[in-house]
Amino acid sequence: MDISDLAERLKAGERRALARAITLVESQKPEHRTGATDLLEAVKDTDREALRIGLSGTPGVGKSTFIEAFGMMLTGQGLRVAVLAVDPSSARSGGSILGDKTRMDRLSREPRAFIRPSPSQTHLGGVARRTREAIDLCEAAGFDVILIETVGVGQSETVVAEMSDLFLLLLAPAGGDELQGVKRGIMEIADLILINKADGDLKATAQRTRADYGGALRLLRKRPQDPEGFPKALTVSAVEESGLGAAWDEMQALADWRRETGHFAGRRAEQARYWFEAEVREGLLARLRREPVRGAMRTLAAQVEAGELTAAAAAEQLLQEYLHTGDRAVAIGP
Amino acid sequence: MDISDLAERLKAGERRALARAITLVESQKPEHRTGATDLLEAVKDTDREALRIGLSGTPGVGKSTFIEAFGMMLTGQGLRVAVLAVDPSSARSGGSILGDKTRMDRLSREPRAFIRPSPSQTHLGGVARRTREAIDLCEAAGFDVILIETVGVGQSETVVAEMSDLFLLLLAPAGGDELQGVKRGIMEIADLILINKADGDLKATAQRTRADYGGALRLLRKRPQDPEGFPKALTVSAVEESGLGAAWDEMQALADWRRETGHFAGRRAEQARYWFEAEVREGLLARLRREPVRGAMRTLAAQVEAGELTAAAAAEQLLQEYLHTGDRAVAIGP
Repeated sequence: MDISDLAERLKAGERRALARAITLVESQKPEHRTGATDLLEAVKDTDREALRIGLSGTPGVGKSTFIEAFGMMLTGQGLRVAVLAVDPSSARSGGSILGDKTRMDRLSREPRAFIRPSPSQTHLGGVARRTREAIDLCEAAGFDVILIETVGVGQSETVVAEMSDLFLLLLAPAGGDELQGVKRGIMEIADLILINKADGDLKATAQRTRADYGGALRLLRKRPQDPEGFPKALTVSAVEESGLGAAWDEMQALADWRRETGHFAGRRAEQARYWFEAEVREGLLARLRREPVRGAMRTLAAQVEAGELTAAAAAEQLLQEYLHTGDRAVAIGP
Repeated sequence: MDISDLAERLKAGERRALARAITLVESQKPEHRTGATDLLEAVKDTDREALRIGLSGTPGVGKSTFIEAFGMMLTGQGLRVAVLAVDPSSARSGGSILGDKTRMDRLSREPRAFIRPSPSQTHLGGVARRTREAIDLCEAAGFDVILIETVGVGQSETVVAEMSDLFLLLLAPAGGDELQGVKRGIMEIADLILINKADGDLKATAQRTRADYGGALRLLRKRPQDPEGFPKALTVSAVEESGLGAAWDEMQALADWRRETGHFAGRRAEQARYWFEAEVREGLLARLRREPVRGAMRTLAAQVEAGELTAAAAAEQLLQEYLHTGDRAVAIGP
């Protein structure tokens, strides 16, 4: 595969090139990693900046319907919209992978939209690293808005927040007692809480839920990255396509404020550092799965099992022999 | 500190030597690690074998009361009992560290018992590795039974099961609807489910709860490491000190069966491998926090933040320069 050709076609906005590029970064084959790294380097200087919007909501809140309606509204305004997902469970429930496009039937046929299901890996770290790189690719390909969806399994919201400029929490209308259902920590992450299904019989409940969350948010200390009044709660109806414009206005107002105050760029820099450190950690662990380290681990493990060595001594021996650190004073940097 | 002297005194069963040895392995100072590794090597050939019993139960089920009553019964039979804890939250809630001995007032004054609170580290991995080494030290010091307690935060039960020969789940009497409160996966780990508080007004409820769990356990497929009838559910009352002897009989019967069939030794060998691999992973990550790797990471992180390098390329560069694997064909082994 010619990486520089792929990079050029991606930067020209070719959807097929984008799809192929994402497949490359998602590949778990070690021999594809060098190409993926080169590709990411080749597309990083486009100066294009998408608005990256993280979105979480448990099954049943109407997340797909919301993404479809919201995405259609944005493409209707001439914007190009990419939808990515971080779902560590998708490796097991194959259905959700296949289902992504069919659940967003209209949006998937829209030329200005690009929908990509969650990469199929078993652990959150693997899914997240590749999705984060897919975001860079979508941005380089000229997308204006990138929606990153998660179902909120385990730590996945935190991880999605580490790759988003804004974070939306989608909730269903609910009685007061159910308010506690929101995971601890999510209030720290959410920039906008959207109460969906504010239509028909649920409209009044949705408005009460919005008021309850609005009140709860006002009790929290103001975050430096927020202007007055944020985070806030709004009602929307994905099926009636109402409230979506107002929600988009709020997102833009918040993003603009953060751009002007430097919080937008500051957050991206912090995220870059976060992902660099994650890459180093994962890269290091990946080396354990390669020969000859792998073979040496097997030998030592047998000795530990037989009681000939303690786990600590065997680990120290392996690290001493095979994983040198700091014994070369090579200058680092390009 | 003279490691071989400490090892000898520990093997002679000196409590102060044991306490000091555990402090050494729990130390987070890198300069103590070599001594800790040497100490573990020096005490590993005692041929002593304690019964290691993992114990989980959420706050309120009477875990401390159970451990105290159960421990007193065992010491009353002439057995030496050590109590360790795996509680990743203890670093924050300093109270639980100080509280361990006062919650077990009688047992803490018993000469044949040794109680050690959870090491204060912020992450489960760190707590668990050191507790696992403390178990080896207690075993070398001649303890017959080692109880490893956890409150079941996050993955802590799984981790405690990886250092135990038997695993007990302590539950409070509860109505049928609350049965679902047991964490997924715990049924796979538990060898005995003990319904505590089978006394006074709660006695009938406890018996119903026992029957419910007994029924649920019978629906599960038989595990190779279990004789007929295991895992099983029993009722106990820690405050009335009833049912404890019967529970101990079941534990011994299960341990004997596993010893005869080879499952006991097989499980210990598996665990040794598990902890060796964990040590290698952690040792590797620890190297990132040392100079000059740490300084190089800082430099590269700044370049990533500034957009001069992608996270993937920077990570690759660091790993190439500083963490060599497999470029030396050194024979491994003692």
